[in-house]
Amino acid sequence: MHPSARSFASPAARASKALLIEAAKLVEEGVATPEDLDTACRLGLGHPMGPFALMDFVTSPLTLEVQQLLHDAYGERFRPPALLKQRVAAGLTGGRGKAGWTSAGRT
Amino acid sequence: MHPSARSFASPAARASKALLIEAAKLVEEGVATPEDLDTACRLGLGHPMGPFALMDFVTSPLTLEVQQLLHDAYGERFRPPALLKQRVAAGLTGGRGKAGWTSAGRT
Repeated sequence: MHPSARSFASPAARASKALLIEAAKLVEEGVATPEDLDTACRLGLGHPMGPFALMDFVTSPLTLEVQQLLHDAYGERFRPPALLKQRVAAGLTGGRGKAGWTSAGRT
Repeated sequence: MHPSARSFASPAARASKALLIEAAKLVEEGVATPEDLDTACRLGLGHPMGPFALMDFVTSPLTLEVQQLLHDAYGERFRPPALLKQRVAAGLTGGRGKAGWTSAGRT
């Protein structure tokens, strides 16, 4: 386990992860693109970064690890989205210089 | 149904409601107070208002109505928290001049 994973499962992080999981489900379902959802969360909700830019910042493997901790602790609603697992397995991890959901981390 | 309820079930709102539901569960479980979670979401996540200030702004009855729409459409993970239903039934609705989760709407 990444040494930061448990500290990322704080109360606010638990609430935030619920949003990230739902955002990934919206992309899985083809409802919206990562870029569109990031824009909607920034302009509509006033968040400083959208959920996909945030996952790329934190990196998708760490995001997945925290979701797995939350899934073990709180059950079905925190089941990591299949799309997130597939992207991590494919090496689309985000993080500096690595391809992720958005182009934000690639510069 | 409130005339705004369907428009509040937009993609970004669906992701945001997942956060609001999880925040209410955290209060139900006694993990944190509404004030503490609002502070954590503002200072930790950079959100312009925390989930409870947001529910008071939108009002809890409308929040509940949108969650019920999402629950009907997407199932168990959007089940409205019992605490939210109890607070609406008790008249703690939020909105201008009305008692809510926080003191923000009461001035």
